[in-house]
Amino acid sequence: MIPGPTPVPEKVLQALSKHPIGHRSKEFQELVESTTKNLQWLHQTQNDVLTITGSGTAAMEAGIINTLSKGDKVICGENGKFGERWVKVAKEFGLEIIKIDSAWGTPLNPEEFKKVLEEDKQKEIKAVILTHSETSTGVINDLETISSYIREHKKALSIVDCVTSLGACNVPVDEWQLDVVASGSQKGYMIPPGLSFIAMSQKAWDAAEKSNLPKFYLNLKSYRKSLLNNSNPYTPAVNLVFALDESLKMMREEGLEKIFLRHNKHKLAMSNAVKALNLKLFAEEKYLSPSITAIKTGEMDAEEFRKQIKNNFDILLAGGQDHLKGKIFRVGHLGYVNDRDIITVISAISKTLFDLGKITNKEVGEALLVASKYLKQD
Amino acid sequence: MIPGPTPVPEKVLQALSKHPIGHRSKEFQELVESTTKNLQWLHQTQNDVLTITGSGTAAMEAGIINTLSKGDKVICGENGKFGERWVKVAKEFGLEIIKIDSAWGTPLNPEEFKKVLEEDKQKEIKAVILTHSETSTGVINDLETISSYIREHKKALSIVDCVTSLGACNVPVDEWQLDVVASGSQKGYMIPPGLSFIAMSQKAWDAAEKSNLPKFYLNLKSYRKSLLNNSNPYTPAVNLVFALDESLKMMREEGLEKIFLRHNKHKLAMSNAVKALNLKLFAEEKYLSPSITAIKTGEMDAEEFRKQIKNNFDILLAGGQDHLKGKIFRVGHLGYVNDRDIITVISAISKTLFDLGKITNKEVGEALLVASKYLKQD
Repeated sequence: MIPGPTPVPEKVLQALSKHPIGHRSKEFQELVESTTKNLQWLHQTQNDVLTITGSGTAAMEAGIINTLSKGDKVICGENGKFGERWVKVAKEFGLEIIKIDSAWGTPLNPEEFKKVLEEDKQKEIKAVILTHSETSTGVINDLETISSYIREHKKALSIVDCVTSLGACNVPVDEWQLDVVASGSQKGYMIPPGLSFIAMSQKAWDAAEKSNLPKFYLNLKSYRKSLLNNSNPYTPAVNLVFALDESLKMMREEGLEKIFLRHNKHKLAMSNAVKALNLKLFAEEKYLSPSITAIKTGEMDAEEFRKQIKNNFDILLAGGQDHLKGKIFRVGHLGYVNDRDIITVISAISKTLFDLGKITNKEVGEALLVASKYLKQD
Repeated sequence: MIPGPTPVPEKVLQALSKHPIGHRSKEFQELVESTTKNLQWLHQTQNDVLTITGSGTAAMEAGIINTLSKGDKVICGENGKFGERWVKVAKEFGLEIIKIDSAWGTPLNPEEFKKVLEEDKQKEIKAVILTHSETSTGVINDLETISSYIREHKKALSIVDCVTSLGACNVPVDEWQLDVVASGSQKGYMIPPGLSFIAMSQKAWDAAEKSNLPKFYLNLKSYRKSLLNNSNPYTPAVNLVFALDESLKMMREEGLEKIFLRHNKHKLAMSNAVKALNLKLFAEEKYLSPSITAIKTGEMDAEEFRKQIKNNFDILLAGGQDHLKGKIFRVGHLGYVNDRDIITVISAISKTLFDLGKITNKEVGEALLVASKYLKQD
């Protein structure tokens, strides 16, 4: 129950273990064609969606270095570890950064983006880089509103880390006119890590023509050119593409609406159970990520608590990162997760709190009842 | 029978299809520790060997951009498609290139390297970048001799693409004092594509301290730092690491000497059978790669020939790349290949030539007999 690698359906594991085929073969071209179409469906876009062998970080870096040039002015939104990482990438490539931040656990304020963008009369800001769902804190930023302000600016590109939002909640790439959207296989995609995805708008490709940052493996123009032939510029992780094809088919079968509803009810079941257990949510309740719930442990050591859950129930929870280590733990409910998984993790947390004398049987019961109430909603 | 993805043992496919585990878990740390030790064994080195999620091209790019700076003078050896690719990477990152080339199908001349390195009295040459086994032509370059000249220069690093030599023939990294050695999972490693490996000497790390080329995902210092804790800076392809652990254990069981002998006898069986079939080897016979045999088809269209083999025998052979398309085909005999595979592919080629009226039953018999003779040598 960590926010990635997420559970993988047996069907997908079986696809993964097929014997690899030649990546220049007709059979593989057919797979590339099929997965690309389904990736566009998942992204709700007509834009190119490229598949890279690498982590989500590789995809985000690709989005940045393919569309920008040294010295370009960008806004970086930062309210967690991943926002922080994109600031580091922007610095490494010599971009001029206007940072809009917010305390970890709180959402970015869209009005701050509006203000900075409106004040940029010279249209010097080339891009707004931000994270949709902050995996480190369980906060979802209001991308819909922020992206509307970016559109009003007209010049700036949106470059968005949707690693733990895509496939969990609504990310309508075309409707919101998102220019660069990065995501990773071990999240909503329900396959093991190793692939990442990047959707590029025409505006992003136009910017790519002017980009002067050096790149080779992550040069997206090579991927775009190869994709015309349903191929890849370098040898891709063939077996992960087998898995991807299977998982995207499963997702199409379930349908976007049902997938989003499932994640939403798991979020509600989880967060309301947590409150019933007298624990505190780390993120503001209005901005809870659909994929991950971060929970404060107060005077209890969160790492010790995680260890007990692992030892007694064989359930792996994620810890806090950096300064949050020992202060919070995080429950992933992203991708191939069902109601039973949610009930199980709530039960494990309840029993552990009960054994520690933190709660009585009343709270244990209350947590399960409130979770069940939300899970029943289909 | 292509030069990658190569065949994968069933045991390894089974490991691949296990349910992913957390990449920050103790269990995964143990895997990283075990695979890293076995990678050092395979590389015959005490140097760091890092695992990257990405293709062999990503590893070679990493080797170049981590140890060099813009404007650095380098020698690039080029006698095939991959040598050509490293020239492109070097150009993209603003390096000053001294090209030492040789016609495709012929080996690089070590004496040319010696001359250029000896004439560099000011020690301006920072690195020599070259490909050991040229997958595009089936030529193996004399890395042992070239690396001895690099050592005599003292200042220049060796940056070597060992993608189709490592795990196929002797690449004693410490003995030859190779500074940067890149390889890829879908070759001698017997696992599907998606991981690549890079061995870095102390001299390479010292150079990394001075490198000013921008990089983030491929910044090897991050990988080195994480490796101290048997971890990864970004989410690695966990399932491919399961597979790697299994395949490296199989390789240790077989032993380096036996692995190299197996590849050598397959090379000899293949190349001698080809001659018995009145076909011509594309590479000079003294410099045949242990992993791949490139075969000229004369007035026959090589693509048409490949198609017949695929249709009639379900054996996929590789075609020629770029200007060699239609002129040659390539048989991969790298990784998990046994004597029966060699006999099968020779039979398929023989039968097809016979059906085309190119040879008589005498040559068919001769090819199989000569191949058997070499295969018997254990």
